[in-house]
Amino acid sequence: MITPKSTNDLYNEYKAQMRKIADVKNASAILQWDEETYLPAKGAAFRGQQMATLSEISHQLFVEERLGNILEELKARNDLSEKEKRNVELNTEDYLKQKKFSSGFVKKMSEAVSKSFHSWIESRKQNDFSIFENDLNDLLQLKRQEADLLGFENHPYNALLNEFEKDCTVNLLDGTFAEILQPLKNILAQIRSKPQGDDSFLRQFFPKQQQWDLGMKIIKQLGFDFEAGRQDISEHPFTTSFNNNDVRITTRINENDFSSMMWSCIHETGHALYEQGLPESEYGLPLGEYTSLSIHESQSRIWENCVGRSMAFWENNYEQVQQTFSSQLGKVSVSEFYHAINKVQPSLIRTEADELTYHFHVIIRYEIEKLLIEGTLRIHEIPIYWNEQYEKYLGVKVPDDKHGCLQDVHWSHGSFGYFPTYSLGSFYAAQLFDYAKRQTADLDQEIKNGNTKPLLEYLRKHIYQYGRMYTSEKLLEKINGEGLNINYFLEYLLQKYGNIYTF
Amino acid sequence: MITPKSTNDLYNEYKAQMRKIADVKNASAILQWDEETYLPAKGAAFRGQQMATLSEISHQLFVEERLGNILEELKARNDLSEKEKRNVELNTEDYLKQKKFSSGFVKKMSEAVSKSFHSWIESRKQNDFSIFENDLNDLLQLKRQEADLLGFENHPYNALLNEFEKDCTVNLLDGTFAEILQPLKNILAQIRSKPQGDDSFLRQFFPKQQQWDLGMKIIKQLGFDFEAGRQDISEHPFTTSFNNNDVRITTRINENDFSSMMWSCIHETGHALYEQGLPESEYGLPLGEYTSLSIHESQSRIWENCVGRSMAFWENNYEQVQQTFSSQLGKVSVSEFYHAINKVQPSLIRTEADELTYHFHVIIRYEIEKLLIEGTLRIHEIPIYWNEQYEKYLGVKVPDDKHGCLQDVHWSHGSFGYFPTYSLGSFYAAQLFDYAKRQTADLDQEIKNGNTKPLLEYLRKHIYQYGRMYTSEKLLEKINGEGLNINYFLEYLLQKYGNIYTF
Repeated sequence: MITPKSTNDLYNEYKAQMRKIADVKNASAILQWDEETYLPAKGAAFRGQQMATLSEISHQLFVEERLGNILEELKARNDLSEKEKRNVELNTEDYLKQKKFSSGFVKKMSEAVSKSFHSWIESRKQNDFSIFENDLNDLLQLKRQEADLLGFENHPYNALLNEFEKDCTVNLLDGTFAEILQPLKNILAQIRSKPQGDDSFLRQFFPKQQQWDLGMKIIKQLGFDFEAGRQDISEHPFTTSFNNNDVRITTRINENDFSSMMWSCIHETGHALYEQGLPESEYGLPLGEYTSLSIHESQSRIWENCVGRSMAFWENNYEQVQQTFSSQLGKVSVSEFYHAINKVQPSLIRTEADELTYHFHVIIRYEIEKLLIEGTLRIHEIPIYWNEQYEKYLGVKVPDDKHGCLQDVHWSHGSFGYFPTYSLGSFYAAQLFDYAKRQTADLDQEIKNGNTKPLLEYLRKHIYQYGRMYTSEKLLEKINGEGLNINYFLEYLLQKYGNIYTF
Repeated sequence: MITPKSTNDLYNEYKAQMRKIADVKNASAILQWDEETYLPAKGAAFRGQQMATLSEISHQLFVEERLGNILEELKARNDLSEKEKRNVELNTEDYLKQKKFSSGFVKKMSEAVSKSFHSWIESRKQNDFSIFENDLNDLLQLKRQEADLLGFENHPYNALLNEFEKDCTVNLLDGTFAEILQPLKNILAQIRSKPQGDDSFLRQFFPKQQQWDLGMKIIKQLGFDFEAGRQDISEHPFTTSFNNNDVRITTRINENDFSSMMWSCIHETGHALYEQGLPESEYGLPLGEYTSLSIHESQSRIWENCVGRSMAFWENNYEQVQQTFSSQLGKVSVSEFYHAINKVQPSLIRTEADELTYHFHVIIRYEIEKLLIEGTLRIHEIPIYWNEQYEKYLGVKVPDDKHGCLQDVHWSHGSFGYFPTYSLGSFYAAQLFDYAKRQTADLDQEIKNGNTKPLLEYLRKHIYQYGRMYTSEKLLEKINGEGLNINYFLEYLLQKYGNIYTF
């Protein structure tokens, strides 16, 4: 007779397997980090192969029958804690989802991504979308197949959206974007009817080392733990985490533009504070992971925009900027500086867009993805459609594909459904920052005094500690009884720009 | 009826599995590199776990029954090329060896190493061997068990020696060390009877950045390919390779001692040139790996000593050293510099020893290991025995364990049998350098002209390209019809020091 395993033993077995998988995934993330920071040129070929092998291994470990059986057995136990129950529930969902993909499909996808990423690089270099077309089309067909494998209601794009943001649907996004579009246009029109301030002083020569040192000071001041992370230089800024005690951010420095480094530093710090604040004891389990991409983005946006582009923050920090760059900014007042870093101007490049017009960039990509996935827009039609939309939404003429539909890496990675989380993140950020201000004494004054700790404490308490315990919507509801409400974001824009542009 | 697989298909299957294993091992090496260069302090705990997981996975992949069957079937085929045959033969040996270790034993060993490494760190910090004793003893007992599992003839130490250097035995080493001991003592006595030159100018203040820049220049000049590798800073210099296109070296800089950085740079470059020169097509297979540890060490020693401490090399390079450090070395002639960097002086620390007395350090460790493995010396007896031997061989009094038996990391890693390869490496280096000079036109003159390329070409042709095709001894025989011959090394010492100390 076999004595059934105790729930505790069974849970530990499950945990051990999940941690093993996390070790492999994190090893892969370290290889990726190294690829973007320190890898010598010729090392790229083998590196790709090494990462593919690790992906294959972690997928195999995750879809092992044995894990499925343990999860099933654990689901039947009634002596799990709430947290344990939630871990099992989420991993069961993930497990059943991964099971839908055969090894062959996973491999095919990974090869298609790799091919398409390289042809994207090449097509950007040559500024010619047609080089990208075929590989992107192959990838798109695989993503449509993925949607079919995953299953969906109403729209195939829902399956892919759900991969990045649980419970996110075309219905929901159509509604949200439709609701916010006209108000955004109205605010923009008001801004454009006013005199536009000067921000040219941001584009002087700012030496690399001084920018780096200043960035490091700001990051530290915001609460990034350098004992549990580091910053390096890479071509595109990013945050990566190998566990909450090793969270790494990167930045890039443009010596001819002060903005490039500073707000990427603050943005990535926002992501990193979240990762450093996730519960260590839940390493490898869902409750040790971030809630969702939109909540992750909300954390970066709170720090980058709500804090990092606020008057309160610069009232305290502008002095050291001026001291560092006295010849460049000695005669620029804090108010002029504040206006410049908040200048609104429709533009071509998403990552350089202001807080308002940013969302037109996202909406355009969202619309295109939806059409591609349903099959009503074809890959070769992207450039023309893209340019029309930029004219329509932003009133700008796209000169070439590099400044148009080739600017973002996401599609080459097969990340259809990712972009909307950027907008959701901004909307959530304004909402959460509003809550934080209401629920924390003198938050603005504290920031003015250079003390952002109360905000960090607030986010730790209400967000970081929970990992994936709640969905984005549930997490918001838990704090203030309501889900996503775009009025917070609109109110935030009206206040800020009404003040800057006086309307 | 099942058609048997073609040899080609079978070989490709074998190759794919070996490459997969190599990917995992190399991923682990990347994590290790990161740990020693950039890891934030708090990241160490999870990093250890992540690397342990990868080791477990690569071990499991290697001992898979399926791989054993493929190897066995391939051994029976008679249409393999010579190289393929050799790969299969070597991997079969490795496979059968690994099979002797149960997963339980591998795990136990890995835990014992980790424990013992940490207590070594602690015991060094507190300068107290007793802190290290128990864990080292546990590890020693496991190593003795390992020897039993592996099997051996004559002496259990042979099993462990063979792990680092194929076909190396106590018999062979006893003979070699006995043969070289008296001649070394004689040369040392002659040196000590002469006036000892001044080398104090090497211990002035040499700023970090200038040392770094100089080191980088020298490394480049020696032929290190920076497109296929990089140099970083770590506490202990080392070389690591993730494939021949990504070979990394590290150095350390002591601002109060010029020697610390310079010869570690050249030493590691020697290792790295070998790794960069291994055949890419054999990635993951024995023929893509270095011949043996002693041959690897011979490559570092050729560059560090035969080249990097030669008059020819500095006749060409001293000028840039003087230009960089004009206030420190402006009045020191190249001849004074050459004498100083070759000063012979019995000392306490192996890694700082000169080319001659270095081997007494190795012999002492070899004798201790032999006694420990046979069980005639016990762990707690090490310090007293160590100090007696240092007095006996080197005539120096060991002031404490930090400058004595705690100085090296190897035992804490369980690396019993590693040290002898350092001496063998030096002996092989002198022998190979002698061959290179005889078989290459004007090698000395070329080095004097700053052209070390002919030497690199020689090593590529006679060593790098072969990987593990031949054993150390066979490789030497192939070049000049003889195996290890210590007279080359003795002749090298006599020439060099006879000239410097005039005897």
